[in-house]
Amino acid sequence: MKLFSLPTPGRKILVLTGLAASTTLVLSNAAEAAVSEETAFIFNTFSFLIHGVLVMWMAAGFAMLESGLVRTKNTAAICLKNIALYSIAGIAYYLIGYNLMYVDVAPDGFIGSFSIFYNTSEAELALIGADEATDELIAAVTSNGYSVMSDWFFQMVFVATTASIVSGALAERIKVWPFMIFILVLAAFIYPIQASWTWGQGWLTTMGFSDFAGSTIVHSVGGWAALAGALVLGARKGKYGPDGRVNPLPGANLPLATLGTFILWMGWFGFNGASQLAMGSALDVAAIAIIYVNTTLAAAAGVVAAMVLTQILYKKMDLTMTLNGALAGLVSITAGPDVQHHGLALIIGAVGGVIVVFAVPLLDKLKIDDVVGAIPVHLCAGIWGTLCVGIFGGASIGTQIVGIAAIGAFTFGTSLVIWFALKTAVGIRVSEEEEEMGLDKAELGLEAYPEFGQGSQAF
Amino acid sequence: MKLFSLPTPGRKILVLTGLAASTTLVLSNAAEAAVSEETAFIFNTFSFLIHGVLVMWMAAGFAMLESGLVRTKNTAAICLKNIALYSIAGIAYYLIGYNLMYVDVAPDGFIGSFSIFYNTSEAELALIGADEATDELIAAVTSNGYSVMSDWFFQMVFVATTASIVSGALAERIKVWPFMIFILVLAAFIYPIQASWTWGQGWLTTMGFSDFAGSTIVHSVGGWAALAGALVLGARKGKYGPDGRVNPLPGANLPLATLGTFILWMGWFGFNGASQLAMGSALDVAAIAIIYVNTTLAAAAGVVAAMVLTQILYKKMDLTMTLNGALAGLVSITAGPDVQHHGLALIIGAVGGVIVVFAVPLLDKLKIDDVVGAIPVHLCAGIWGTLCVGIFGGASIGTQIVGIAAIGAFTFGTSLVIWFALKTAVGIRVSEEEEEMGLDKAELGLEAYPEFGQGSQAF
Amino acid sequence: MKLFSLPTPGRKILVLTGLAASTTLVLSNAAEAAVSEETAFIFNTFSFLIHGVLVMWMAAGFAMLESGLVRTKNTAAICLKNIALYSIAGIAYYLIGYNLMYVDVAPDGFIGSFSIFYNTSEAELALIGADEATDELIAAVTSNGYSVMSDWFFQMVFVATTASIVSGALAERIKVWPFMIFILVLAAFIYPIQASWTWGQGWLTTMGFSDFAGSTIVHSVGGWAALAGALVLGARKGKYGPDGRVNPLPGANLPLATLGTFILWMGWFGFNGASQLAMGSALDVAAIAIIYVNTTLAAAAGVVAAMVLTQILYKKMDLTMTLNGALAGLVSITAGPDVQHHGLALIIGAVGGVIVVFAVPLLDKLKIDDVVGAIPVHLCAGIWGTLCVGIFGGASIGTQIVGIAAIGAFTFGTSLVIWFALKTAVGIRVSEEEEEMGLDKAELGLEAYPEFGQGSQAF
Repeated sequence: MKLFSLPTPGRKILVLTGLAASTTLVLSNAAEAAVSEETAFIFNTFSFLIHGVLVMWMAAGFAMLESGLVRTKNTAAICLKNIALYSIAGIAYYLIGYNLMYVDVAPDGFIGSFSIFYNTSEAELALIGADEATDELIAAVTSNGYSVMSDWFFQMVFVATTASIVSGALAERIKVWPFMIFILVLAAFIYPIQASWTWGQGWLTTMGFSDFAGSTIVHSVGGWAALAGALVLGARKGKYGPDGRVNPLPGANLPLATLGTFILWMGWFGFNGASQLAMGSALDVAAIAIIYVNTTLAAAAGVVAAMVLTQILYKKMDLTMTLNGALAGLVSITAGPDVQHHGLALIIGAVGGVIVVFAVPLLDKLKIDDVVGAIPVHLCAGIWGTLCVGIFGGASIGTQIVGIAAIGAFTFGTSLVIWFALKTAVGIRVSEEEEEMGLDKAELGLEAYPEFGQGSQAF
Repeated sequence: MKLFSLPTPGRKILVLTGLAASTTLVLSNAAEAAVSEETAFIFNTFSFLIHGVLVMWMAAGFAMLESGLVRTKNTAAICLKNIALYSIAGIAYYLIGYNLMYVDVAPDGFIGSFSIFYNTSEAELALIGADEATDELIAAVTSNGYSVMSDWFFQMVFVATTASIVSGALAERIKVWPFMIFILVLAAFIYPIQASWTWGQGWLTTMGFSDFAGSTIVHSVGGWAALAGALVLGARKGKYGPDGRVNPLPGANLPLATLGTFILWMGWFGFNGASQLAMGSALDVAAIAIIYVNTTLAAAAGVVAAMVLTQILYKKMDLTMTLNGALAGLVSITAGPDVQHHGLALIIGAVGGVIVVFAVPLLDKLKIDDVVGAIPVHLCAGIWGTLCVGIFGGASIGTQIVGIAAIGAFTFGTSLVIWFALKTAVGIRVSEEEEEMGLDKAELGLEAYPEFGQGSQAF
Repeated sequence: MKLFSLPTPGRKILVLTGLAASTTLVLSNAAEAAVSEETAFIFNTFSFLIHGVLVMWMAAGFAMLESGLVRTKNTAAICLKNIALYSIAGIAYYLIGYNLMYVDVAPDGFIGSFSIFYNTSEAELALIGADEATDELIAAVTSNGYSVMSDWFFQMVFVATTASIVSGALAERIKVWPFMIFILVLAAFIYPIQASWTWGQGWLTTMGFSDFAGSTIVHSVGGWAALAGALVLGARKGKYGPDGRVNPLPGANLPLATLGTFILWMGWFGFNGASQLAMGSALDVAAIAIIYVNTTLAAAAGVVAAMVLTQILYKKMDLTMTLNGALAGLVSITAGPDVQHHGLALIIGAVGGVIVVFAVPLLDKLKIDDVVGAIPVHLCAGIWGTLCVGIFGGASIGTQIVGIAAIGAFTFGTSLVIWFALKTAVGIRVSEEEEEMGLDKAELGLEAYPEFGQGSQAF
């Protein structure tokens, strides 16, 4: 009935108590000081899994951010879209997308393999099904470096993130089902094809394009798809007055938007962290630590930059802009979160926050109606972040521009085609009456907050 | 001031940089390629801990789901019940439950040991208290495979999940204190006794019953206890009209319900993942990866199935049904998340989503008032998931039915007795006036949203 | 197309399948049974990282708790403060704080090094930049026990927690910018200087003061800073009537406050868990398991104690008090979460819950207006928890009192000076009209819930 008799370890000098007894043995042989192949396999796999859970959690972050920034009468619809798009993207990526992105991409390739399903490897099935786990069976599995499906899981949550970006920009006027069809095409084809160019080791990787965790490949791609959708769909009724006036349509629940931002920030440790793709060595885990710190500092700098700038420009701090400042900082650092002086992360993130403060009114000037600021945050800051690798890192700025442009042109072009096709075939926008009434009543036949205030009568 | 000079690892070909230098040494000896016993001990223990945190987080998921699906006037009461039931279940399991479930269960046994408290092992205390961590002390600890209390922690969060299932079904009319007494009995006796039959290695395990992470042992048990409670308690005032009409009493805050569902989905990776019970080998971590993927796909299929089916049946998508579709998919896969072709997980989860869409109106036809749909999700889909192990897996379908029936009969029977005893002794239902006023004012003397709308005057 | 042919492992007897084949090899040599130095390095680093993410998540917990407990008209402002304070604290700690806390603190020292920036070590940069990861380069990194920046990350989230505690107590009347300046000073100077005395291995550690994860160093420090602020700032308009009457100003959104509490509880596993400072040995991970269990039980006991006590004292359970009971239980166990009989954790946590129930009305009697109960929870229970190490643990109670008093005097004194200086220089309180109108409109020019109820007209 007493506390540990061990001295409570100080927080400066680490007492590796458990190692003490065997130190001499351990140090007597270099191999024994190293990580065994199977241990590295476990670390690498687990990094994909646990960090993948954090990225999955970002789906909830987008759902809360968007729920907080739409009006009450469209809240249930945006909730439905967010859980549905995650599900549809996951299934589409399982059935088709992953193979297009990763299987048999040539070094100068533009696409992977058309085939359906993606399942555990033969080696893993042999180990799992064996009566005895022999060294040969284990070695056949561990030589891959990580478990096959852990990688699939981690890649899947990335396509879901890309899809999540689209829903916020197009909220409050898009029909649910055509939106779902777009997500299906995005997750099965558009995202995997462009991602095969870099992460599938295709032509952009051969060329030297560098995008560590996806400022361009995930965030700009989501932003381009949203921009194409916003152009085809048009602005919400009442957003832009005939005299050029921009009417604010304020979000109904700002604590939820704040929660969403914190969730996204939390999830980003998984997003950037496991993009190191390994954790089974001192080098890799030290790199992940550097990545975590840069992720933290870039987001913090984005917050402070957006907060200070809105205070200067508008004499008031703006909560939504500050939240988007955090996200822009995160998007900005995502292409190069392994930058080595952490002061650089502060600069990269702060510029991201500044970009968002200027890009939001610019979009309004162009009458492009982006309900939550997804295009400024994911597209604009995503381009900035990808350029940073050229500016501060080892990649060529020219190659970075080629990558940004090629991925942008492909994604924007194909998205535009799909959106137009959907518009022509089934229509993508609810009627004026339905928009007035709100998508919750029109498309779901219910209210998100049936007991609160005027609800759908508010506008 | 530059990015890492390492080539950014592609996302396809893993560069195990840290291992490169020592590869020849590592491969020269099979033992050095393997995981040491102490390393495996750390992995196994940590899997229980970090996955256990995810399962603990499910308590917040239930709290948010239920807060979103009750009316405003009963929201604070359901919040209180959720944090209180987690606490009471944890303490009860510490004092009595764990020992009944795991200590000295005979191979044909029906119950473990009656004893109080459960603390760290002698071997661990000896290592912790020693001046030096000798090889003998370490070996005495590591031979157990995992730390004693990490297992306790992981098992405890399971009993809390079982208890959480009950609160939603009985919301909006049950008195707080009698509910707490039921939870105490459930966590101290009912849950541990039935769980000892399988997970305590009692008679059902001897018989061959298989329930990987608890479709029956956790989810159906929660559902049976809720069903017994709903029968004894009766429906909410106004739910069922005299003419057989079912009145919807819509939930007050659907974004919270959506958040709760995402939290539960996230927590389920811990629930199913660490139910592998080990992570200290390539085999185990590869199995966990497979489990994560199946968990994802089953939930996604549940979402899509429920969404499509409500669109077909009712011409509108239903958000609540879609959320419950996700949960039903998760419950369905829980008995066999290690199924090897991931296409099967899609089927199992989709059927779960279909079950929920049909079971919800069926319960209403039977005038069993389940506020959040806990019985369809946890009991009905739980039975389906357990049967799936007989259908798609290695277990005998007959044995699966015996397990489902035995656990169901025991749990439903004992729950019915306890609910009746509580009803007779102290009453379990608030008065009509209190129900009208709402449990928040009646039992807590406060309002959950004092500034919003009419609140408790709404009904 | 079948389930794993492996027998589903029972939940009692762990089948370490992966180890089976190599058991004889592993046991033939003590070194092979142990954890290699590099493996331990990965575990230690990863513990800081993943547990640090959980502590980062506590920032969202405070944001939600405080959003739920203020009135609607001050909700957006408290959201802004919470994300901004996290960001400012992080940057300040990076620029100045960490060095003051950890770099070159003498054994009888009161302060570390004045210097700016804190970056990765030379050894880690050498390994990262090398063409080949040689054994020498790896050994130079791993001899530190953990990666340098993982430790920075874990320490940073602690200073952010300290800062978060302050915002709740001072809500609803403090100006945003002066508050931010205080946070900057707190994170750059006050917190690091006092923390250097113990965790920087300064004079209090030399003296034998023990505070495992910061009941005093984090929680009381936040509480003292909040108390100084509350005294200088004064109570909210209308809180205390002229006749000594205490007017409740109820929180606007109790499910959010509940969510915040669950988030904090979840995050606390990281807070206490990685304060073991290592995970790379059987001893360390077994200790973390014990810590998780004590953290669980103390919180649960705090809940039950507060719930039962408010029922007895006021004939009603109080949700806010129950949530604060959970937090008080968590704060109480934080100084000694490694206590060996878990029954003690129940007692320590329950007393924490009792303290909060009595301290809240006591503060009101003293007309100290603490909006969320931060002072009872973090200061009062923090002192209790630190004393417990003297009562139940190995530390001297006298030394514990010296530590509590010295840290309290320094923090309260310096905070008082800063708050007075800010009051004199720029004013720290909004005008009466702005307070009436609400900080959201006054300072941010927006509303948190523009469509719900009367919102800012409510008071």
